[in-house]
Amino acid sequence: MESPKRQIILQTPNLEGAKKAIKTGIARHRTVVIAGSCTVDYDGRASSKLEEGERLIIFKPDGSALVHRPKDYSPVNWQPSGSIFHTRIGKDGLVIRVFRRKERESMVISLTMIQMVAVLDLVDNGDFTLYATEKEMQEAILFKPDILEPGFRPMTKEMAVDPGFIDIIGYDADDILAVVEIKRVKANKKAVEQLKKYMDVIDLDDSRRVRGILVAPDITDNGSELLNQLGYEYKPLTPQECSEILKQKRGTPLTAFFEP
Amino acid sequence: MESPKRQIILQTPNLEGAKKAIKTGIARHRTVVIAGSCTVDYDGRASSKLEEGERLIIFKPDGSALVHRPKDYSPVNWQPSGSIFHTRIGKDGLVIRVFRRKERESMVISLTMIQMVAVLDLVDNGDFTLYATEKEMQEAILFKPDILEPGFRPMTKEMAVDPGFIDIIGYDADDILAVVEIKRVKANKKAVEQLKKYMDVIDLDDSRRVRGILVAPDITDNGSELLNQLGYEYKPLTPQECSEILKQKRGTPLTAFFEP
Repeated sequence: MESPKRQIILQTPNLEGAKKAIKTGIARHRTVVIAGSCTVDYDGRASSKLEEGERLIIFKPDGSALVHRPKDYSPVNWQPSGSIFHTRIGKDGLVIRVFRRKERESMVISLTMIQMVAVLDLVDNGDFTLYATEKEMQEAILFKPDILEPGFRPMTKEMAVDPGFIDIIGYDADDILAVVEIKRVKANKKAVEQLKKYMDVIDLDDSRRVRGILVAPDITDNGSELLNQLGYEYKPLTPQECSEILKQKRGTPLTAFFEP
Repeated sequence: MESPKRQIILQTPNLEGAKKAIKTGIARHRTVVIAGSCTVDYDGRASSKLEEGERLIIFKPDGSALVHRPKDYSPVNWQPSGSIFHTRIGKDGLVIRVFRRKERESMVISLTMIQMVAVLDLVDNGDFTLYATEKEMQEAILFKPDILEPGFRPMTKEMAVDPGFIDIIGYDADDILAVVEIKRVKANKKAVEQLKKYMDVIDLDDSRRVRGILVAPDITDNGSELLNQLGYEYKPLTPQECSEILKQKRGTPLTAFFEP
């Protein structure tokens, strides 16, 4: 038996030809991409009507569906995975109904003209890894202060001072105050100058010795030079390491930590 | 001068041919759709790494960009409109950098194999209209109670009672208590039975006369029959009318009213 082709691409097919390719593609769990002129009617929790225009329609093997206008990153209409597809030729053209039985939700795409139907066999097993933001690096240090240095005890976070917000203030193992500035990318001279502003404020408020610590995955030569001149310290720490710590903390996927 | 074709579709092009078509498509403000095997590296507020796999990539004329895996309705990586595109052939294959200068954010797509490049001229001027949910119909009545009937004064909304939540309770122009149940689609017998449950609870608590009002765009014959038997009332009101009222209220697009 001949194995089905990995891709079928039809240019300006007639509705009957398009219908056949789309139905076959969905049945074979392929990714189906359609470009054409359509209207879209949605009815569910709300309802919406999209007038005639040329759009890109994507049906995925997991039953998710997207209608994209030629602008904006978000789809104008969509259905999540698990949707059911029904394709027929009606008086309005090629009508594709995408619905979820349980939720009583349906999206009806009526295509009058089709520029392209592409049926693609996309194989994708690649891992997706999301690394921490600066806020998450801060969270990781607060959760496990030993990653900064043994005996470090964070006292406040995001303390508002005149030049901005100090990421972390704490005491080291010898009870010396430390101001911590976090960068998630290679720290430059500017980052050191930022730390200096915070140090100046703290020095005014406190006559005790204060340590300045710059946390970043790397530091530029200029940054390092200024850091040494000012007597501050550099602590290498990567967003990746912080991601790992947060994973331990919560046992949930890292994506859950991101603010919307 | 020959006018450029409305669509260019390349099947399994070599990287040089793909690069030319993509660059031309972006320059001519077309919608570019690529299917192929790629990695994606994102760096910005956070950073992410997507290992090799076959995906669908979409570049829109407004500078938005999407990378879709063959599952889930949401893209795995994306950039909003206003992004800048840079395409080159490097040692990793065809490398497309999508970036925003101001935000220091970049998404780098490295394609090693390409199944399809489609350059599409999609013309879309269709209006998109979103109609209200039941919650918004409720909101419209609370904002403009006269649409229910002149003199109506809402007292509570979503009052928790044993069988569920009563949409609106209020007093009419003659100070008679009214229980309002809202449906955004054609109300059936079941909707009337739901109203009856609420009415039964209210009747227990209150010896005064209580009116039962079912608000919906339409009502079935069975529903109407039961409604009459029980002595309740039907008030026709469509989600569309409610949408219009909410627009007056806020002067913002209706989409803003939807909860995430």
